[in-house]
Amino acid sequence: MAMTGDNPQPTIEELLGTETPLYAARRSYRPQLCPALAKGAGVTRPLAGFDLQVLKVAAEQLPYVSQNKLVEIVPQDPQPHEDKPRRLGIVLSGGPAPGGHNVIAGVYEAAKRAHPDSTLIGFLSGPKGIITNKHTEITGEMVSRHLNSSGFHMLGTGRDKIDTDEKMAQCRRTCADLQLSGLVVVGGDDSNTNAAFLAENLRDLGTQVIGIPKTIDGDLQVPGLLQVPFGFHSACMAFATEIGNLNSDCKSDLKYWHFNRLMGRSASHIAMEVAFQTHPNVILIGEEIEEKELTIHNVVRLIADVVVERASQGKNYGTILIPEGILEFIHEINILIIKISYIIAAYNREATEEESFHKLSYEEQVQLIDNSDIWRDYDSRVFLGFPSLLQRGLLLPRDSHGNFQYAQVNTERILLEMVSTYLRKQRAKGIYKGTFRTQNHYYGYDGRGTFPTKFDCDYAYNLGFTAYSLLANGCTGYMAAIKDLHKPIEGWQPIGIPLAALMHLEERKGRLELVIQKQRVDLESRAFKLLEQERVKWAKDDLYRFPGPIQFQGPGADSKPLTLQLNSLA
Amino acid sequence: MAMTGDNPQPTIEELLGTETPLYAARRSYRPQLCPALAKGAGVTRPLAGFDLQVLKVAAEQLPYVSQNKLVEIVPQDPQPHEDKPRRLGIVLSGGPAPGGHNVIAGVYEAAKRAHPDSTLIGFLSGPKGIITNKHTEITGEMVSRHLNSSGFHMLGTGRDKIDTDEKMAQCRRTCADLQLSGLVVVGGDDSNTNAAFLAENLRDLGTQVIGIPKTIDGDLQVPGLLQVPFGFHSACMAFATEIGNLNSDCKSDLKYWHFNRLMGRSASHIAMEVAFQTHPNVILIGEEIEEKELTIHNVVRLIADVVVERASQGKNYGTILIPEGILEFIHEINILIIKISYIIAAYNREATEEESFHKLSYEEQVQLIDNSDIWRDYDSRVFLGFPSLLQRGLLLPRDSHGNFQYAQVNTERILLEMVSTYLRKQRAKGIYKGTFRTQNHYYGYDGRGTFPTKFDCDYAYNLGFTAYSLLANGCTGYMAAIKDLHKPIEGWQPIGIPLAALMHLEERKGRLELVIQKQRVDLESRAFKLLEQERVKWAKDDLYRFPGPIQFQGPGADSKPLTLQLNSLA
Repeated sequence: MAMTGDNPQPTIEELLGTETPLYAARRSYRPQLCPALAKGAGVTRPLAGFDLQVLKVAAEQLPYVSQNKLVEIVPQDPQPHEDKPRRLGIVLSGGPAPGGHNVIAGVYEAAKRAHPDSTLIGFLSGPKGIITNKHTEITGEMVSRHLNSSGFHMLGTGRDKIDTDEKMAQCRRTCADLQLSGLVVVGGDDSNTNAAFLAENLRDLGTQVIGIPKTIDGDLQVPGLLQVPFGFHSACMAFATEIGNLNSDCKSDLKYWHFNRLMGRSASHIAMEVAFQTHPNVILIGEEIEEKELTIHNVVRLIADVVVERASQGKNYGTILIPEGILEFIHEINILIIKISYIIAAYNREATEEESFHKLSYEEQVQLIDNSDIWRDYDSRVFLGFPSLLQRGLLLPRDSHGNFQYAQVNTERILLEMVSTYLRKQRAKGIYKGTFRTQNHYYGYDGRGTFPTKFDCDYAYNLGFTAYSLLANGCTGYMAAIKDLHKPIEGWQPIGIPLAALMHLEERKGRLELVIQKQRVDLESRAFKLLEQERVKWAKDDLYRFPGPIQFQGPGADSKPLTLQLNSLA
Repeated sequence: MAMTGDNPQPTIEELLGTETPLYAARRSYRPQLCPALAKGAGVTRPLAGFDLQVLKVAAEQLPYVSQNKLVEIVPQDPQPHEDKPRRLGIVLSGGPAPGGHNVIAGVYEAAKRAHPDSTLIGFLSGPKGIITNKHTEITGEMVSRHLNSSGFHMLGTGRDKIDTDEKMAQCRRTCADLQLSGLVVVGGDDSNTNAAFLAENLRDLGTQVIGIPKTIDGDLQVPGLLQVPFGFHSACMAFATEIGNLNSDCKSDLKYWHFNRLMGRSASHIAMEVAFQTHPNVILIGEEIEEKELTIHNVVRLIADVVVERASQGKNYGTILIPEGILEFIHEINILIIKISYIIAAYNREATEEESFHKLSYEEQVQLIDNSDIWRDYDSRVFLGFPSLLQRGLLLPRDSHGNFQYAQVNTERILLEMVSTYLRKQRAKGIYKGTFRTQNHYYGYDGRGTFPTKFDCDYAYNLGFTAYSLLANGCTGYMAAIKDLHKPIEGWQPIGIPLAALMHLEERKGRLELVIQKQRVDLESRAFKLLEQERVKWAKDDLYRFPGPIQFQGPGADSKPLTLQLNSLA
C-alpha cells in the first residue's frame, strides 16, 4: 500500500503506483446499516398513510405489478437462514453516480449473509448486457476492491432502453438461461421504467425485479417517501467545492464575474443545493422562470441588475449559477425549439443523407426555416433578436429521437454575452460605471465521477440491502428506498415503493409513453421559499459560503444535502 | 458554529449561515513549525555549498542588495526579547494562491512573540495599496479568522508593478509615513522583482524588504534551495481531484475523451504534477515540444495515435492533459504570433482608436496581415493550414503590453478539432474504427481558490516566520524559503536567498529588463525522465490514479507534491 507523505521515505514504486492512501482508506470504511437491516434482510409489511394512485393506463399496461402496495421493511429476529441459494443479477444503467458500487456491495453481502452459496451476476455496459447476455459473476474480492469508490467501473454502464418486444424477449432469454430469481436495476427515471416493464414481463419466469433510485440530477423523488436519489449529494458537494473555490478566488482577485453552468438536465435541484452550499450572487431556477413566464431578456436583466448594483458598491466580481436545462423553461425559446425541431424532422424525412439539414450551410438552414408554413413573422423577430451564439445553438443537431439537446448549448456563454451587451447600453446611459470581466465554466462530468460522500456510501449500501430484502420477501416491480434520510441512520426506514404508482404519460418520439415521472423543483417547498428570501442578501453582500473539499474524517464528514434538511424542518 | 450533519437537528440559522463545520475546524488547526523556528525567530548564518552568481547588470542596478550572500536560519536559544516593537508591512501580489493567509499569520505571530507591541500593516488590493497608501492594521482576530483558509480575502490582491520612478517615490513616501522597518512582499516572479528593487530603494529609509515565493504555477524555483513555491501543491491537488474524477467517469461511461486544459502560464509544472497524481492517457509538456521542435500537426498526431491504439482495444474513452501555455512552445505558431503582434502594433500606432485593428472585420484583419512586408508566402501557407478556431485565436487582442494572451485561447478545443479531423482521414483509410466523442474542460480559477492542503498551511506559516527572522537579523533583498521540503517538517531548513542572484535579463515591452527568472520544467530532471517512462503505460492501459478530494484528517492528509518527492529520490 502506498503511503505517500505519511512515510518520510516513500519508495519509487509507491510514488508511481496507482494506489493512494485515501483510496485504500476508503476501501476499509464499513458503511453503517440502519436498524431494520443491521442483522441482514428484513421482512416486509404494509405501510399505511400514503396515497399512491395508479393511472388507468398503468394498470392496463402493468396488470400484475400495478397491484403492488407500499411496504416497509422491519427487522427479522432471529434472522432466518434461507433454505437454498439465490441467483441474482444486477445492472448499472445511465450516467455514473457516486455510490453505485455500494449498491452492489449491499445486494451481494445481504445475499451472502442469507445463504453463502447465493450468487450475484453483474451485467456489463448497462442494459445492453442483459439484452446480449454479457455478464460476470461478482466476487467478494471485486466487492471489497470497489467498496466506497467512485464511478461504475466494476461493470460499466450504458443507456439502452428495453423498448421493443424483441429486446424484451432477449432479456427473458438471458434471465431464463441464467436462472435468475431476481434482478436489481440501478438507474434514473428511464431505467426504473425499464424495471417496471421487466418485472411485469419476467414474472412467469420467476425473476423478480427491483429498481434502485440513482441520479446525480436529483429529479427522481417521491414526496414523503424518497427525498433524494443516491449520488445527488456527492455530485452537489463536488460542484459546491468548485463554486466555493470560485467564490474565494473572485473575492481575492476582485475582478471576475464567474458564470457557471451546472449539470442536472431539466430540473434545477443541483443548482439549488449548490446555491445553499455556496451562497452565490445570482442563482437561476428554471422552474421559477417558467412559472413567472420570464423571457430571456428578463433573465438577462435579472443578472445585469445584480452586476450594476454591486458595481455601485465597487464590487466588480461575483459568482452566478445557471442550471444546464434553463432554456427549456423560457417559453419563447421553447416554442422556437419545438418549431425548428419539427421543420428539421419534416425536411429530413424528404432529404437524402447527403442533403440532410445539418449538411446545409447556416444561411441555407435559416432560409429553410424562414420558408416554413409554421414559422410566423413574430418567430423571426424573436429569433433575430437573439445573439448569434443562441441562434446557432437553436439549430444544433437533434438527438436520435429528434429531441433538442439542451446540454449541448453553452447557455452560460449566451447569457454572459447578452448581459455584456445590456451593460454596454447601461454604461452609455451613465447607469453602469463598473468593469465587466468574465470567466465561464461548465461543471458536470467531474461531479459524476467524484468519490461518494459518507452519506452516499451509507445510503447506497442500505439501498442494496433493501433491494435484497424486497426480493427475499417475494416482491417484484418495486423501487427500493429509504424514508427519513434527514434523520440519523438510526432513524432511516427502508421501504418498497410500487413502481407503477410513479408512472405517468409523457411524449417520447412524438407519442405518449408510460414512464416514471421526473420531479422538478417544487416552488411551494420550504427550501425554495427560503432561497427566495436568502438570495436577496447573497446578491448584494459577500455572504459566500466555502464548503471546501469533501471530507471523510473529522468535521464536515457527516454532511447531508442542505435542501433535504431544509425541507424536513418542522 | 454550524454543525450541519453532525447534529441530528441543526437549526435553520445553522443551515442558512455562512460557517461550515470544515471551515471552523480548519481555523482551529495549528500549523507546525520546523525546529529552527519552533521557538520564534531564529538567527541567520552563512550557508555554504551553493554557487549563486549575480549578473553584472544586476550588480549595477542593485549595488547594495546584490552583495547579499545565501543564509540559513538556526534556532536562537534562549529566545531574545526584542528591545522595541517593530512596525512591519505586508502585501499580497498577483493571482491568489492557497496559503497566503498563513504567511500573514506567520509574520504576525513571529513579530508578536518577539515583542507584543509590534504591529503589522496590511496593504490593500496588492502593490497599488503601497503606492496609494491604502492599508489596514492586522489584528489577532483577523489572523485567527483567516488561518488555514483559502484565497487572499483578508487584504485582496492586484497586479500593479512598481516600475516607474514616480511609483517608487510614492512607495518611499508610504513606508516613511508609516515608519516601516520591514516590508514583506508575497508574490511570484514579478512581485519578487518588485521586492528586490524596493529593497534597494528603501534602504536609506531603514525599511528592509523580504520576498515570499508564491505561485500556483510552480515556476518560481531555485535548484537545491527552493523546490516549489507555496500554493502549487494545493492547486495541483484541486486539479488532480477533478481529473481523477474524470478518469472515473470515462472508465464508467466508456464513451468520452476528456480534453483538459490546465492553468500554469508558460511552464508545464502543474500538468506534470497532475499527471503523476492521475495517470492520464495523454500528457503534453510544452518544454518537451519545444526541445523536440514539434509542429502542431506532430502534437495532433501524438494524441491521435493514442486514440487509435485504444480504439483498437475497444476503448473509446480517455483523459488528456494540456498545459495552457503550450502554443508558446510550438515554433511555427510562436513565429506567427510574433509577426502578427508586430503587424498589429505597427498598424495601431498609425490608426485612430476607432480604426484600430480589432475594430476591423476578420476578413480585413487577415488582408492587412497578408499585405505586410514581414509576412511571407510560407507564413500564409502555415496559417491557412490551421483550423479556423486557431486562426482566429492567433488574431485575438494583445494585452496592454502588446503580448499575446495564451490563456485566452481555447487550446483544448483547437487540438480536439484537429484530432477529430485527422481521425476522419484515418477512418476513411480504414485505420481507425472507433467512435470519438469528446468533452472539453478548463481548470484554473477554482484551483487558485481551493482550501490550502496541510502541506501548504505549514509551509506558508513557516515562510512567514522565516521572513520575520530575516528582518529581525537585519536582512533586506532576500527571498524567504524552506530547504528540503521533501523531508518531514523536522528536517525543513529555513533560508534566505539573495534576490539579485535570481535575476536575469528578459524582453518586456520590447526592451530588456532585469527580472526574476521563471523556471521551466527541466527535461533532465528525475521526474521528467520517469514521466517519459510511465506515460507509455498510461496511454495503453487504464492505470488511472484517483487521488480524491483534499483531506485534512486521516490517510492522505499529509501528502506532498509527487514531482517534489520524485526529484528528491536518492
